[in-house]
Amino acid sequence: MSIVSKQMLLVNYPVGKPKLDDFKLVETPLPEIKNGEALIKTIYFSLDPYMRGRMSQANSYAEGYKLGEVMYGGAVCVVEQSKNPLLNVGDLVSTFTGWQTHAVLNDAAIKMTQKPPKEIKPSLSLGALGMPGFTAYHGLMKIGEPKAGETVVVAAATGPVGSMVGQLAKLKGCRVVGIAGGSEKCAYAVSELGFDVCLDHKSATFKDDLKNACPKGIDIYFENVGGMVFDAVRPLLNIFARVPLCGFISAYNQINNLKETGFSTSILLEILIKRMRVQGFIISDHFNHINEFLNEVAPMVLSGKIKFKEDFVKGIENAPAAFIGMLEGKNFGKLIIEI
Amino acid sequence: MSIVSKQMLLVNYPVGKPKLDDFKLVETPLPEIKNGEALIKTIYFSLDPYMRGRMSQANSYAEGYKLGEVMYGGAVCVVEQSKNPLLNVGDLVSTFTGWQTHAVLNDAAIKMTQKPPKEIKPSLSLGALGMPGFTAYHGLMKIGEPKAGETVVVAAATGPVGSMVGQLAKLKGCRVVGIAGGSEKCAYAVSELGFDVCLDHKSATFKDDLKNACPKGIDIYFENVGGMVFDAVRPLLNIFARVPLCGFISAYNQINNLKETGFSTSILLEILIKRMRVQGFIISDHFNHINEFLNEVAPMVLSGKIKFKEDFVKGIENAPAAFIGMLEGKNFGKLIIEI
Repeated sequence: MSIVSKQMLLVNYPVGKPKLDDFKLVETPLPEIKNGEALIKTIYFSLDPYMRGRMSQANSYAEGYKLGEVMYGGAVCVVEQSKNPLLNVGDLVSTFTGWQTHAVLNDAAIKMTQKPPKEIKPSLSLGALGMPGFTAYHGLMKIGEPKAGETVVVAAATGPVGSMVGQLAKLKGCRVVGIAGGSEKCAYAVSELGFDVCLDHKSATFKDDLKNACPKGIDIYFENVGGMVFDAVRPLLNIFARVPLCGFISAYNQINNLKETGFSTSILLEILIKRMRVQGFIISDHFNHINEFLNEVAPMVLSGKIKFKEDFVKGIENAPAAFIGMLEGKNFGKLIIEI
Repeated sequence: MSIVSKQMLLVNYPVGKPKLDDFKLVETPLPEIKNGEALIKTIYFSLDPYMRGRMSQANSYAEGYKLGEVMYGGAVCVVEQSKNPLLNVGDLVSTFTGWQTHAVLNDAAIKMTQKPPKEIKPSLSLGALGMPGFTAYHGLMKIGEPKAGETVVVAAATGPVGSMVGQLAKLKGCRVVGIAGGSEKCAYAVSELGFDVCLDHKSATFKDDLKNACPKGIDIYFENVGGMVFDAVRPLLNIFARVPLCGFISAYNQINNLKETGFSTSILLEILIKRMRVQGFIISDHFNHINEFLNEVAPMVLSGKIKFKEDFVKGIENAPAAFIGMLEGKNFGKLIIEI
């Protein structure tokens, strides 16, 4: 009496929006479990925007799905049979088995599972206390570094990531401006989540609305959408703004064709995929640390361990030509006018 | 017997490349110094690419020069007369008096001056041990965070910033690939500065040369040039690459007209001006910190301090439609398939 798993496979890489026939539901009889294995039954599996990024052969930030494979992803399952001492029948486990009703886990896979804390609803381990919540927490706290009084803008404000970002930012004493699609979501963000404002990006006056909602500019923009929202945010970003990026839902359907999405999204997507940190800095902001630099580097320069070329030009009257030449790369070494 | 200062004024905001007649040399008699003041004579003043950025009314990262004003900037001067107890005749001071032969400093300006360490050549306080050296140090060490074995690419490799970057990176055990204009500069970077390779960006094979010089990709790109160099670097950047930005010499002549420079430079210039930190992250890289998150956030979720909306869809067969809808923003809350 073999167990049959219903599995949703990816059978085509979508071009643009995924279509229903890019997926195929199959029934797969599962083998009897062997020693070290367990049979699990799915209670919940998660759908997340990042999955669209994986439905592609293009180089994205996670390994792509293969055609004919189950759509893997986060799931909460219950153990139905076990020949592994780590799992007992009835245990709840968080897995990455994704879009299927049953699965057999081998010993290695069992070691990767987590058991959701008993006191919380199991589904929360796919949301507030799982990947989306942790994404929000890490991006806001570790990269955004919010300070009381700052203005935080977050798109997809009622989504699993955005709602956590906004609420954590409120707890930090920030002004929180959400962006969402439609009046119902916006009302929820303000009345239930406690955002200061939530703006409808479908509104014709969205750009002006955003400007009015951020009278002191934007200190943190938690980027998970890209596209026109980012374009509206850009001019409002303050000096020392932080922009944690964790996704570009607006671009996922165009990942094979990024030139069409505009360069702003293309470069940001690359920053995301490569986990790059692009940080502007102006050295005058850091002069309070100059002694640290001098203490370390001056001895290296004095000893000749570090060499430094200087290009002296005599006479103030020659300064403009030297300067113009420098912009064309004509100098060789640190250009200095000697009086 | 009044002292006359020769001063180079900015008299036009250049459009594109600066022209000689954008500057004007004037002779300005200086007043007798009053109590608290000092008269200084310039020994050296510095020319730096950032100055082009200030020759504009456009919003740049430092306050713009005003027309008819002296081209202010770093200088090393000697005190000729002093009615201020902080300065004695003959003292050397680092100032920001810029393109002029003499200047009178008031008490506030005197407090801003620094005295270059006696044991080093005074001009070095405009280069290796001044603003350019510190720029290199801060950007490489604090933002680039080089580790032994990594590949560091720096443009303007023989310039005051680039040469310091490359040498510091060598001392950290990195592979250092410089980029410079012309074979003479490239030879100097390798034979004198100890770079592993230095490539001529004027070469027709530059893009391929760069790829060949970085067989393990690029971990740190110290960005001070922008434009086509950045375009060649981009595809070679590794995951977790760091890109400290401190300037865009290729763009300074086009600062009023950024659309023509291409969007890549435009967005990077904005990152620079606003000292933004744009950092991609993928949460799976950080799962080793998940307990910190759970410890802090789980109680907030349990107590209701943090709310979290879930959008359950029943049945695996409905997963594709729900997923497609999610990409269009149709879900409301964390989308979860319930089996």
